[in-house]
Amino acid sequence: MEELEEIRYFFNEGYKEYRPNLTLDCAIFGYHEGELKLLLVKNKIITKWCLPGGYFKQTESLDDAAARITEERTGLKGLFLKQFKAFSKPGRNATQAWFDQDKFFELTGIKLISESWLSGETVSIGFYAITDIVNATPKGDFISSECRWFPVDDLPDLAFDHNEIAADALFSMRIDLYHFPIGKNLLQPKFTLKEIKTLYEVLSGKTLNATNFPNKLIALNLISKLDEKRKIGAHRSPTFYAFNDEVYEKALKEGLVLV
Amino acid sequence: MEELEEIRYFFNEGYKEYRPNLTLDCAIFGYHEGELKLLLVKNKIITKWCLPGGYFKQTESLDDAAARITEERTGLKGLFLKQFKAFSKPGRNATQAWFDQDKFFELTGIKLISESWLSGETVSIGFYAITDIVNATPKGDFISSECRWFPVDDLPDLAFDHNEIAADALFSMRIDLYHFPIGKNLLQPKFTLKEIKTLYEVLSGKTLNATNFPNKLIALNLISKLDEKRKIGAHRSPTFYAFNDEVYEKALKEGLVLV
Repeated sequence: MEELEEIRYFFNEGYKEYRPNLTLDCAIFGYHEGELKLLLVKNKIITKWCLPGGYFKQTESLDDAAARITEERTGLKGLFLKQFKAFSKPGRNATQAWFDQDKFFELTGIKLISESWLSGETVSIGFYAITDIVNATPKGDFISSECRWFPVDDLPDLAFDHNEIAADALFSMRIDLYHFPIGKNLLQPKFTLKEIKTLYEVLSGKTLNATNFPNKLIALNLISKLDEKRKIGAHRSPTFYAFNDEVYEKALKEGLVLV
Repeated sequence: MEELEEIRYFFNEGYKEYRPNLTLDCAIFGYHEGELKLLLVKNKIITKWCLPGGYFKQTESLDDAAARITEERTGLKGLFLKQFKAFSKPGRNATQAWFDQDKFFELTGIKLISESWLSGETVSIGFYAITDIVNATPKGDFISSECRWFPVDDLPDLAFDHNEIAADALFSMRIDLYHFPIGKNLLQPKFTLKEIKTLYEVLSGKTLNATNFPNKLIALNLISKLDEKRKIGAHRSPTFYAFNDEVYEKALKEGLVLV
């Protein structure tokens, strides 16, 4: 019953550790072999799919909390993680929906009271992350019955304002593709131009020119040709490329214009 | 003493109206004739310059609060206004700095107590706005002694983490220039290509090509040539252009790629 103890502590005394009225929702995008998916958790109480999320600890910066929560849901550290927008429509409080629900009491034996630290209006800070699906091990939290990937273009009806948050995350990620490098942890350390083009096409949802697009990455000095080829057959042996770490890290901080 | 009553109400009972632990800071950029400035307020208590800001009302969305606060500081409605990031470094609470300050007591007769609704960690949602300097009428709030424009490349040492917020606002605004239309309320309804190029150059801090840049705006159908010229002299009479309202409004919502 350790888990139940944790739930009780969170609902009754969580305000000692977490910031009230402020939550985090994270759109965790998963990429693998030409497909883009989104990680969702099914909430036990309201039996609807939601974005993974949580509360911020008092001692944590927003970025640290987002890293903690994405690690809890995927098992992965150091994902590409970016804050994109705060959501605040009055009445959007997700936790509020759990109050006065018999189901919550049945499940936990906890009587939620409406003057709890979890009631009232909430603002949610939206983050998105991108991971390779094969590296991640989806895992729900105490309030979720399932945690799995959905194709981004075929999401279920999500709880609260989470469809809006997911759509905004995709929109923001697609703008950021023009201004921040992407690909580490999504491609192998050595990759072909076709592989990086496919990655960008799947993330952006756009068809890219097979010559112009990689030329831009090369012109920005983001990637360099290696003296090594993949051996496929007599007439097909594409050259390997790799990211230039220094340029990549600098561009992550200072931005770039990939046009 | 109406103002003092307001201050007392805010400090003692503000939690009834405002969201605790969540603030808003707004970088209001001012453009005029080739110059880019930032609006700052001087805080009476800590006698340092700060970004304009405030608290969110319980019943307000973040965007509504940002519109209210920028209108209070500039006298203007309907500015280009965009949320760009939330700031959360532990210890960043701006209001906390006012506590236990004799100066605050001298000024207001109010004894701040450390268990006030204004104490504790705060997260600030950063917005930026862009206005034409000549249209704005800078006006401080009850806690500021001055409110005026500073050149963005020559800002004073700001209080709290406000230099970081201002730098991030400029960085975000410059990325957004590639993805959202700008210029309404900053240019006259009829403008020359030279005028819109100058606007973009000042906002972006970059030199733009006199032919390619306007051609992109025309190709996106954002601006159209009018059948009218400005009369400067026998050999100089540049053609006027205007924004295409429908394309402009759609791009504000859906984004564009100005490359």
